[in-house]
Amino acid sequence: MPKVANQWLQEILRLLYIRRTATRSDVIETTGLNPASVSQALRLLLDCGTVLKVGEKQSNGGRPSDVLSLNPEAGYFAAVDLEGRRIRFALSNFVGDIRCRWEEDFEQGRPLPVEKITNGVSRVLEDLDDDQRSRLVALGVSYPGFLDPEGRLTAFNLGWHRFPFLTKLREALNIPVFAEHDKHSCVLAERWLGSAQNYRHGLFVIVERGIGIGVFLDGKAVDGWRGMVGELGHCTVEPDATDLCACGRRGCVESIASSGSIVRQYCERTGETKEQLRVTDVFERARRGDEAAKAVLDRAGKALGRALSYAIQFLDPEIVIFGGNLIPGEDVLLPIVKAEIARCTLPEVLAGVKMTVSSLGLDIRLKGAVSMAFRTSLRNPQLLDQMCAPVLNGHKSSSQRAGHPGRNEEVPLPVQPSDGG
Amino acid sequence: MPKVANQWLQEILRLLYIRRTATRSDVIETTGLNPASVSQALRLLLDCGTVLKVGEKQSNGGRPSDVLSLNPEAGYFAAVDLEGRRIRFALSNFVGDIRCRWEEDFEQGRPLPVEKITNGVSRVLEDLDDDQRSRLVALGVSYPGFLDPEGRLTAFNLGWHRFPFLTKLREALNIPVFAEHDKHSCVLAERWLGSAQNYRHGLFVIVERGIGIGVFLDGKAVDGWRGMVGELGHCTVEPDATDLCACGRRGCVESIASSGSIVRQYCERTGETKEQLRVTDVFERARRGDEAAKAVLDRAGKALGRALSYAIQFLDPEIVIFGGNLIPGEDVLLPIVKAEIARCTLPEVLAGVKMTVSSLGLDIRLKGAVSMAFRTSLRNPQLLDQMCAPVLNGHKSSSQRAGHPGRNEEVPLPVQPSDGG
Repeated sequence: MPKVANQWLQEILRLLYIRRTATRSDVIETTGLNPASVSQALRLLLDCGTVLKVGEKQSNGGRPSDVLSLNPEAGYFAAVDLEGRRIRFALSNFVGDIRCRWEEDFEQGRPLPVEKITNGVSRVLEDLDDDQRSRLVALGVSYPGFLDPEGRLTAFNLGWHRFPFLTKLREALNIPVFAEHDKHSCVLAERWLGSAQNYRHGLFVIVERGIGIGVFLDGKAVDGWRGMVGELGHCTVEPDATDLCACGRRGCVESIASSGSIVRQYCERTGETKEQLRVTDVFERARRGDEAAKAVLDRAGKALGRALSYAIQFLDPEIVIFGGNLIPGEDVLLPIVKAEIARCTLPEVLAGVKMTVSSLGLDIRLKGAVSMAFRTSLRNPQLLDQMCAPVLNGHKSSSQRAGHPGRNEEVPLPVQPSDGG
Repeated sequence: MPKVANQWLQEILRLLYIRRTATRSDVIETTGLNPASVSQALRLLLDCGTVLKVGEKQSNGGRPSDVLSLNPEAGYFAAVDLEGRRIRFALSNFVGDIRCRWEEDFEQGRPLPVEKITNGVSRVLEDLDDDQRSRLVALGVSYPGFLDPEGRLTAFNLGWHRFPFLTKLREALNIPVFAEHDKHSCVLAERWLGSAQNYRHGLFVIVERGIGIGVFLDGKAVDGWRGMVGELGHCTVEPDATDLCACGRRGCVESIASSGSIVRQYCERTGETKEQLRVTDVFERARRGDEAAKAVLDRAGKALGRALSYAIQFLDPEIVIFGGNLIPGEDVLLPIVKAEIARCTLPEVLAGVKMTVSSLGLDIRLKGAVSMAFRTSLRNPQLLDQMCAPVLNGHKSSSQRAGHPGRNEEVPLPVQPSDGG
């Protein structure tokens, strides 16, 4: 790629990924690159088919500007989401649309065999033909727990203690593997594709088996000293409570407001057995006026709301995005959370803070993992070259014929029903 | 200053301010500047007398290296601290040593007249001779409350609502005025002169009339969306408490653990009148076994400790520095705070976190304001020129004769006894 600096390509591809479409002037204005550099880089990207012209935009008086977009078939990313009761897999095209999903069960309480992951990844790659497979750029993994500098993961839910999963995956799969903590992958998905695109300071709240917040300040995900920023789940909100948490302590937010804790408390009140119930069942019963369900959600919502009021007062966000089980519980759990936030937060701090439910749904961590893999691959000269290699005519023209950059081409596979809790 | 870039001067002066002394090799290693640039800049700084040679350091085999230091008399900074029950003023020399202090009372509950500030500043400048006064660089102000983008301050304790104090001060004093929120001035003082010098992620906890935390992450003070990061004081830690807070709500940390709240609770228990008591008196009585004092401190310490446990879990600091009244209460209040932090924080997050009491004492905000004024002045080309203007021989040689860069030359003026609460 003579004369075209990698930095120009990186910035243009990154912008098109986030914005979906842009004109040459948009690129110049947003990246701050000089117009000649942008023209040179765009020429290369259009020539190789990584970028497509998808329309024209009338400008005032002058000739219309080309509207540009990434070629959805210019590259593929695989993704794994290790949070949740099943391991989720996806294949994404070059614009972040998920083209294929897969899920694998794993046995709670026993270490997850790494083959489960390699099998799942192979499964979502199955339908790629040879040419498409040659355009597979990388695998992005969204993980819970703590990854040490040697790439060993400690995650209680997966039964892994310093398990060298990055090494294992790279050996088994023979593609670049990039990993990101699930707090960050949610933030990245929201920043690139979701509600947080125009915000610089925010919190993403995840309530599932665990409870945590992803934090971004000044437009950047925040890590803290040891990557443990946002450990909201183990804040003691009811110091005198008897609820035992997985961490061995009592009265943590997680022991009261996680999906499992909501189900457990409901069963304690009603005598039902946990195995039959999901948190979404408790939501449904509360909707129908079940007093036990309402009482459990009241307690859970208040515990979570209080902890979030602290987070808001400490971190001064402009947006708070609710994800995980706050999405299906938007009508029965979230209002309690918000009321408690309002009660426990200084009005001057809360005024103007936008609160919204994530629009990315269960795919959020998969989309975050893909965004992360895309972004990380841009910074790797070899992978950037691969992303800018000429796209075969077949794929290029099929997209162009469709007259659309592939936004609606998602082909959801039938998957097992996903766990609400 | 031909050929010597401002950036080189800035980095060298900044390093010498923080490190006190350094050799040429230290400068090269720490700043990453190239050796030729460092030599040129040091030659200029030594020629003008802004930097002095204060000793030699034997190196392995080679010839000894000059040990360099800022000339304490190369410039002066005034500082104002608007927190506390009195307004505090200081004059600092070029190395951050306070040479002169002053305090002004102000009437609680009435707006602070701006003349109180200008009078106080004039008072600390009184003993400077004409030459010294020409080397007065700037005034640094450490303020509580909220400063809007137009420089108007809202601070309930000072009785100011959108008061244009920066404009007023600049008009009245005719020197550059730089202002910093007191949370940040504490962080800056600790980062430049105190316990936080070698840490990148930390919290500075202030407990006085108000309660707040200054936050730095990745080596930088954190602001959040509207500069309200660290609003710990108004976290609701006892939702059912009746204690009324200045913010109008109940059960805030501040309504239980601030100096005034500790005194109030003690008086409520004993029937004494508030006017006669300071928080340090309550500490003293607890030391002597007074049950009422011990009970009040137990409640205050737990409320504060619990709120801090949240801050630690959200922000993942490597150091927590306690300031304000936690210093005189180090033996009777702080242990309760620490025990509650330990009880309410996930052990994995707390492990290895260093906790320490600020060593900068009551001067912390004055020292922070001076550090901030120094740092801000470095970035102003005109003020940087002033800081590098030739120092008159008299002052230069007096420092050199003393054979010491002035560390022990602090001349504390007799001041009114300072308020513990």
